[in-house]
Amino acid sequence: MATTREPIDFYFDFLSSYGYFASLRIEALAARHGRAVRWHSMLLGVSVMKTMGLKPLLDTPLKGDYVLRDTARYMRRHRLQLARKLTDPVMDPRAAARGFYWVRRHHPGQEAAYAQAAFDAYWREGRDLGAPAQVAALAPAIGVAGAQMLAGIESDQARADLRDAVAASLARGVFGSPFFFVDGEPFWGSDRLEQIDDWLAAGGW
Amino acid sequence: MATTREPIDFYFDFLSSYGYFASLRIEALAARHGRAVRWHSMLLGVSVMKTMGLKPLLDTPLKGDYVLRDTARYMRRHRLQLARKLTDPVMDPRAAARGFYWVRRHHPGQEAAYAQAAFDAYWREGRDLGAPAQVAALAPAIGVAGAQMLAGIESDQARADLRDAVAASLARGVFGSPFFFVDGEPFWGSDRLEQIDDWLAAGGW
Repeated sequence: MATTREPIDFYFDFLSSYGYFASLRIEALAARHGRAVRWHSMLLGVSVMKTMGLKPLLDTPLKGDYVLRDTARYMRRHRLQLARKLTDPVMDPRAAARGFYWVRRHHPGQEAAYAQAAFDAYWREGRDLGAPAQVAALAPAIGVAGAQMLAGIESDQARADLRDAVAASLARGVFGSPFFFVDGEPFWGSDRLEQIDDWLAAGGW
Repeated sequence: MATTREPIDFYFDFLSSYGYFASLRIEALAARHGRAVRWHSMLLGVSVMKTMGLKPLLDTPLKGDYVLRDTARYMRRHRLQLARKLTDPVMDPRAAARGFYWVRRHHPGQEAAYAQAAFDAYWREGRDLGAPAQVAALAPAIGVAGAQMLAGIESDQARADLRDAVAASLARGVFGSPFFFVDGEPFWGSDRLEQIDDWLAAGGW
């Protein structure tokens, strides 16, 4: 069935812990099956809160407690140590997301490295990335000048690129983080990585 | 860590397709690890709609479409053929749930067989179980007289038992279907069965 070698599309929000977890594994998973990964920054605030009319996970009765338990269990299993707690105040993710689209436009091919650096800074190191200057501090990690990135994050072009990307993600049915398309099939959640692995191994079903 | 042989608690709503899917696999999974399964009928209308304030899955923008795709994919993989479609009108699940607690009280040990018969009738055969008489028609499958079960489903005791069971499930943090507790750890979703398998094999983590 799936005889193509289409890249895997990986959608994430930088403020999503599950998106971060998936970001640590998707490249190796894809590579095992000879696939590339196309990274896409999206905004849960637009998909979950505005479009679906839902509350943030941790503010949802019952589910909030579950997510804390589930995340702790995931971190034990994968031996992750994060400076940031899920219950810490959540950043405004738009500067980091605009940074992503600025990198993609001006340093194409570097956007995955940028996303990994941003995820690492926010979740493992616990740094705040809510302000453009904090995001621009990631620039050296991908060999870019900080002043250029700062100007880029503030640019109308980056704002338009993010807006277009979020609209495109919604049009494609993306709502959560992480969210994947593999051979046209949508997969939602970091707990679907094993299923994606099976899908790629089997050539779909 | 998990050196006990505690039964696995399995919570489900009869109107939940994912709950049905899990019901087909949980006993064999548990048995491979020497565990029993305690079945618990719950009501998504109370947990998801009243307590969490959410809409039914299929009525949630974006997620509704995803669930249809995801379910179709699951059914292809597990070679399931159902007479009922997810988009068919949803039954009132309370009669079937009261039937479960009546069986548990009066024919203890038979409630899993009853639940399997009810799931099979509703999902695979596409029969409606919204009315007590339709539920009572399942009685012969577990060797019980239909008239007795019908009276039981209508009894105050069954109503009280269901009410108490739903309250207990909420107090324990159960919100979705399927939902499991394994060694005190909560697992939500049919896509977590593989993780539960790993947990039991590893003795937890």
